[in-house]
Amino acid sequence: MAETGSRDLSLWFADGTNYAGQDDLRARKARFEAGLAEVYAALPEGGRMLLEYKPFEPAFYATDLADWGMAYVHCLKLGPQAQVLVDLGHHLQGTNIEQIVAFLLAEDKLGGFHFNNRRYADDDLVVGSSNPFELFCIYAELVQAEQDGLPGAKNVAYMIDQSHNIEPKLEAMLLSVLNCQEAYAKALHIDLAALEVAQQAGDVLGAHEVLTSAFKTDVRPLLREFREAEGLAPDPVRALIEGGYAQNNTRERGTATAGGGYPT
Amino acid sequence: MAETGSRDLSLWFADGTNYAGQDDLRARKARFEAGLAEVYAALPEGGRMLLEYKPFEPAFYATDLADWGMAYVHCLKLGPQAQVLVDLGHHLQGTNIEQIVAFLLAEDKLGGFHFNNRRYADDDLVVGSSNPFELFCIYAELVQAEQDGLPGAKNVAYMIDQSHNIEPKLEAMLLSVLNCQEAYAKALHIDLAALEVAQQAGDVLGAHEVLTSAFKTDVRPLLREFREAEGLAPDPVRALIEGGYAQNNTRERGTATAGGGYPT
Amino acid sequence: MAETGSRDLSLWFADGTNYAGQDDLRARKARFEAGLAEVYAALPEGGRMLLEYKPFEPAFYATDLADWGMAYVHCLKLGPQAQVLVDLGHHLQGTNIEQIVAFLLAEDKLGGFHFNNRRYADDDLVVGSSNPFELFCIYAELVQAEQDGLPGAKNVAYMIDQSHNIEPKLEAMLLSVLNCQEAYAKALHIDLAALEVAQQAGDVLGAHEVLTSAFKTDVRPLLREFREAEGLAPDPVRALIEGGYAQNNTRERGTATAGGGYPT
Amino acid sequence: MAETGSRDLSLWFADGTNYAGQDDLRARKARFEAGLAEVYAALPEGGRMLLEYKPFEPAFYATDLADWGMAYVHCLKLGPQAQVLVDLGHHLQGTNIEQIVAFLLAEDKLGGFHFNNRRYADDDLVVGSSNPFELFCIYAELVQAEQDGLPGAKNVAYMIDQSHNIEPKLEAMLLSVLNCQEAYAKALHIDLAALEVAQQAGDVLGAHEVLTSAFKTDVRPLLREFREAEGLAPDPVRALIEGGYAQNNTRERGTATAGGGYPT
Repeated sequence: MAETGSRDLSLWFADGTNYAGQDDLRARKARFEAGLAEVYAALPEGGRMLLEYKPFEPAFYATDLADWGMAYVHCLKLGPQAQVLVDLGHHLQGTNIEQIVAFLLAEDKLGGFHFNNRRYADDDLVVGSSNPFELFCIYAELVQAEQDGLPGAKNVAYMIDQSHNIEPKLEAMLLSVLNCQEAYAKALHIDLAALEVAQQAGDVLGAHEVLTSAFKTDVRPLLREFREAEGLAPDPVRALIEGGYAQNNTRERGTATAGGGYPT
Repeated sequence: MAETGSRDLSLWFADGTNYAGQDDLRARKARFEAGLAEVYAALPEGGRMLLEYKPFEPAFYATDLADWGMAYVHCLKLGPQAQVLVDLGHHLQGTNIEQIVAFLLAEDKLGGFHFNNRRYADDDLVVGSSNPFELFCIYAELVQAEQDGLPGAKNVAYMIDQSHNIEPKLEAMLLSVLNCQEAYAKALHIDLAALEVAQQAGDVLGAHEVLTSAFKTDVRPLLREFREAEGLAPDPVRALIEGGYAQNNTRERGTATAGGGYPT
Repeated sequence: MAETGSRDLSLWFADGTNYAGQDDLRARKARFEAGLAEVYAALPEGGRMLLEYKPFEPAFYATDLADWGMAYVHCLKLGPQAQVLVDLGHHLQGTNIEQIVAFLLAEDKLGGFHFNNRRYADDDLVVGSSNPFELFCIYAELVQAEQDGLPGAKNVAYMIDQSHNIEPKLEAMLLSVLNCQEAYAKALHIDLAALEVAQQAGDVLGAHEVLTSAFKTDVRPLLREFREAEGLAPDPVRALIEGGYAQNNTRERGTATAGGGYPT
Repeated sequence: MAETGSRDLSLWFADGTNYAGQDDLRARKARFEAGLAEVYAALPEGGRMLLEYKPFEPAFYATDLADWGMAYVHCLKLGPQAQVLVDLGHHLQGTNIEQIVAFLLAEDKLGGFHFNNRRYADDDLVVGSSNPFELFCIYAELVQAEQDGLPGAKNVAYMIDQSHNIEPKLEAMLLSVLNCQEAYAKALHIDLAALEVAQQAGDVLGAHEVLTSAFKTDVRPLLREFREAEGLAPDPVRALIEGGYAQNNTRERGTATAGGGYPT
């Protein structure tokens, strides 16, 4: 970290067991704790350790850091330089991710994100492609934390962690960035004052509508204008395809892998 | 049905078992079949029988009509007047509802919907409140089926099946109607010709973007204009609240139940 | 608590929201914290506060104590008299409950259980009826914690929290007790020395088989002998039915509710 | 099939889409139907086509044969030589697999099984290792169908479909066979006459106990005796390990892969 100038040591552990009885769960936890403490002690000044959790895969009985709670407890013991990393694809069905984000922000323990999208397991699809409203709700929590001046809101590390099998990689990555920009722009559109008034009045649907009204807003014209003002291509996907970067790049690096070519 | 002029006999069965062994699953199926056949034979001319499925609740081991497949098999045996009813809240986690809708439309076996929204179980929330993109995708299948001239697309029965505990009932019902209108309007915005071109070219992300572009469009101004042209209130929720209908109605019918009042 | 001589204040909160935006998640968390602190400060000496978590129902968007992690964080802030209560029916699909039990035991934060069984939501079925192996694995962790001399293993509060709709209440409750006894007896049959040897050797299937061998053992003859030695009825369910307690009790208390009678 | 003397053409299709809009779901279904019909027409006399379904992976938006219902509808259109194949790992959370088995048996459409076990996704673990009671309930349906003389019960193809990463392959495969034998032996222990009496009397818990009593029976001594009477090794796992087959075999085939060796 010192040599490369890296601030964050981002750790995901595949460790776990596949069969009940295969190993002693408390002994594993103790070994995990000891190992992390050793590494934590060697962190450079100002360095952070980000702990990522995941409920299953590759372990199918018990994963050592199975949920945000387990990651959190380890971080708490390690110290303030250890924080939780939230991968959007690492949750059991139904989990309210934005609530976890809000909880971690309140505790100053949100270290960063691995953005992607899922419907079933750790699908690693384009960010916001499967459930755009969920992505927006996560950004809504981030924007509100920033507005409320929470110190931890400024140090969140944003990363994309996808895996593309059937779509062109660069275009897919770019689409994820654009979906994040749109979710962020929509979250910035939330009328936070009106939201607070409705929430405090116990106006269930009124408060819900303040939020959803921002989600329903089409922010694409605004983002196009913004890019033009910055001298950027207004439609990045078209610019990528027309610019020929992907094709040239693929040609220079050799044969394209199956399924990763651009449709022509 | 004959006396009330009802076309559809819409059936949901709570029947099932809570414990393995409690009853003979095949015997139950046979009894179900016999009972449905008796009722089906008594349907008036032009009448339909809609069979609704549900994976659990109140039965927690096996529900007799647990999924669309079981409802479908019964309908097939009964005859063309029996069709499947899709309640959006009656699916296991991860189920792709719009695929079931497309499948049933292709088989001319989609009888109708119970609209609501869920995140966990049969939550019966406001339609489109938990996952608006899913609602849009369902409407996209309906619009495409209509465009393709599928005969069954015209006879789908649209019903709302919600349960309101903490929000005002009328406002919640109205919001569901509006969310359906918006999802439908967005689905009508899909550039179906461009979609087909991209799909046939195997342009994975291009086709996806044709669809999501329609979803990202803000159709609220259009719907407001449409209502004004029809002489209707442009903002139905505001009209409901300001019109005092709900309050008057509540007053006339007696004390409002806890949590069901309008915030003032 | 002082007046009734109660040691444990067991708390489950239905608090949460149904719609995104309905309330400020961080503000709710802060209010929760303040409220719990006030109650905790008033605990009698030696009294405990048990915090129960639940992912959904009645709240369908966000529940304030949604998982063990949220309950744990609150307990940690409150102090050593606050501990987590695990209701077996309050988890998302796939959750490894025995791992949470092991984790909480290691942290001395396991306060107690609400025993029941589920397949879908909070089904509140007879304990061990839906997944007996899961119940056994939970007892395996408890037995191992006791053997390892963990202080917290001795103070776990065991409660049954079921809801009977179609089966006779007393018989169902008794069956839950028997299933717990059997799971406990099987867990006591685990050859812990052999288990440790296999685990330390990395013998995945060997260790798994030491555990499952105990599960496969039929402990019912042993439990019958034990009861006879204690002067108890060897078959408690038969004794209950034949003893007529349930019928007499039902008669004395008035008409039996539908579905709650004993088959004759 | 004719050349190799194979009776069953067992088909699993990875086909599906990752993103909404990526392809036309009804068009895909029509292509699927046409393709299957072409293959079906070429089946040799007495040959069967088994259609396997899977809810997700590798497709993460919509899988063309996503559930038993879709496979069933295709089979029905194809004809009596097409039947559904049930892979125990290919279901959404909470699915009652034995109910699907019972339903397919009643319709004479159960073609076969891919045995394995799962807790999360398509984990492909040792059969019966994660939920032995579920395996038993599946065998209970098979035994009852056989007893009732259902013609289809005799032609079910039993296959094991596992994937071993951390455990020795041969030992794991053998353990799966043994777990199937035990589940089958337990199912044969069900007092079917008593079960029927209790079921017909509406004795919910009594019927459940007839079933679970068979599950709780330790059938290992019986199976050991049976093997000895047949001149087989009474403990097949020990015989495999002590016989040295696996080690010899591994040595002959070259270096053992990491994690696949036998503990010594």
